[in-house]
Amino acid sequence: MKVLRTIAELRQELSLKRQAIRSSASVVGLVPTMGYLHQGHASLMQAARQQSDIVVLSIFVNPIQFGPNEDFDSYPRDEARDVETARSQGVDIVFIPSVEEMYPQATQTTVSVSKLTERLCGASRPGHFDGVTTVVSKLFNIVQPQRAFFGMKDAQQVAVIQQMVNDLNMPVEIVPCPIVREEDGLALSSRNVYLNPEQRTQALVLSKALRAAQEATDTGVATTAADIRRILREHIATSPLAVIDYAEIQAFPSLEPLTDQEEVQGRDDLLIALAVKFGKTRLIDNIRLQKSEVLSHV
Amino acid sequence: MKVLRTIAELRQELSLKRQAIRSSASVVGLVPTMGYLHQGHASLMQAARQQSDIVVLSIFVNPIQFGPNEDFDSYPRDEARDVETARSQGVDIVFIPSVEEMYPQATQTTVSVSKLTERLCGASRPGHFDGVTTVVSKLFNIVQPQRAFFGMKDAQQVAVIQQMVNDLNMPVEIVPCPIVREEDGLALSSRNVYLNPEQRTQALVLSKALRAAQEATDTGVATTAADIRRILREHIATSPLAVIDYAEIQAFPSLEPLTDQEEVQGRDDLLIALAVKFGKTRLIDNIRLQKSEVLSHV
Repeated sequence: MKVLRTIAELRQELSLKRQAIRSSASVVGLVPTMGYLHQGHASLMQAARQQSDIVVLSIFVNPIQFGPNEDFDSYPRDEARDVETARSQGVDIVFIPSVEEMYPQATQTTVSVSKLTERLCGASRPGHFDGVTTVVSKLFNIVQPQRAFFGMKDAQQVAVIQQMVNDLNMPVEIVPCPIVREEDGLALSSRNVYLNPEQRTQALVLSKALRAAQEATDTGVATTAADIRRILREHIATSPLAVIDYAEIQAFPSLEPLTDQEEVQGRDDLLIALAVKFGKTRLIDNIRLQKSEVLSHV
Repeated sequence: MKVLRTIAELRQELSLKRQAIRSSASVVGLVPTMGYLHQGHASLMQAARQQSDIVVLSIFVNPIQFGPNEDFDSYPRDEARDVETARSQGVDIVFIPSVEEMYPQATQTTVSVSKLTERLCGASRPGHFDGVTTVVSKLFNIVQPQRAFFGMKDAQQVAVIQQMVNDLNMPVEIVPCPIVREEDGLALSSRNVYLNPEQRTQALVLSKALRAAQEATDTGVATTAADIRRILREHIATSPLAVIDYAEIQAFPSLEPLTDQEEVQGRDDLLIALAVKFGKTRLIDNIRLQKSEVLSHV
């Protein structure tokens, strides 16, 4: 496994590796991350290893996707441990550019997706998705992967990147991978380290609220979007520390919001998504609503 | 030579051609155009033929780079003649997508370059360069060229696209090619067909003004940006039909404007650029100011 820090070295190494495989059909798989890797990232590397000839992991805490009052400086970093994790997952190349390597000058060019980015995390974090789509465009141009692997925990990010790829005809397949959770249900996130013990305990309301919404749909207790929204808020309200940013149900991947009256049963295109703050720490979680067999109104 | 109209066919054909060359170093050269080809385009195809193994010419009148009151509908088109021109220039693949092929839905994704696009044509044509950078991004992703050839008549476009390529790490070399002129000096443009005989005669003031500015610099008559601006305006004023949009001198490729007092002699990074309307027809022209040997103030 090679650890590389400049774009020129990375391109050279990829070119050599592609030639070594001597097949025009060699597949490069990219796992773009901000590092501080956990089992969620490991699952992306495993998917990439299975579906690619050459696996590239990028680690880059991208300043332009953080707002001025967000946690860019304090975002957790542990490069030595990350490199070990990558090695143990069979990654071929770890790309760890500096901020200067990625942005030798402030970028004048922005890749932005409208509509999809106006709701949910986009509404709470202005400019965030422009930073994401711009850096992902750069990484795609640098690595030229045939496949790129993203976790569904950032479901809106997956929808936004897929839209960008479609609109700009990028020659890359986006592979969304399932959320990985702690045994007690908390979705894995590099930001979980920010939680103190009390917050960590109460943070379980996110996954519990999502499960409750699914169960209420299964049993026919919830039939409309309003029912789902009420159940989410009731569950999250059981945590005195939780402050809701959003608790929403929408179509996926269009992210079109549902009206309160809209039926949720019998549909398989719905995403329930949460963003909840505990102190300064903002956690997100989501679930694709499974189509329920129960049709209570029949 | 193949004429292809869908992205899937184009990618398939390029893949076959790349395999046929059996070299991982095969160079694809792209000449992106809006068609109605003239000798300026022919010179781009010649440069591409010399510097590439596979030459792709794209012909696409891109709706999103035209403003609502601009000439998208009336823009001149002659596909049969264009295909013959391409054949005679040794082009391998002509890509002529429909608007529906390029924009199956209205694009939600925009690639935009700031600063460089705020002046000159960007100021006169709001949104124009966003349309250009977005469609050029799409064409780069579709064709995946190693080199792309652009005419220096649209000098600002060259600067903007080079900035985009740098900022987004696009794996393509931009090759700017010299302006091609009629014998009497008029820069070739598909839009020249709009001119009536009287406008066509008076349109010579553009190239004459540029030559006069260069000569005045050579002879030491013009030493500052103010001198250049005055000479340009005086020459263009000799045409009663000409309406100046801009007549400017700036650094290239940064497009930083010069103050009136700024010295122009001894510099080789300056671009004089004009946009002048004759009736509804807007013509542009420019010249890279050659470093003059005369230093009148010594």
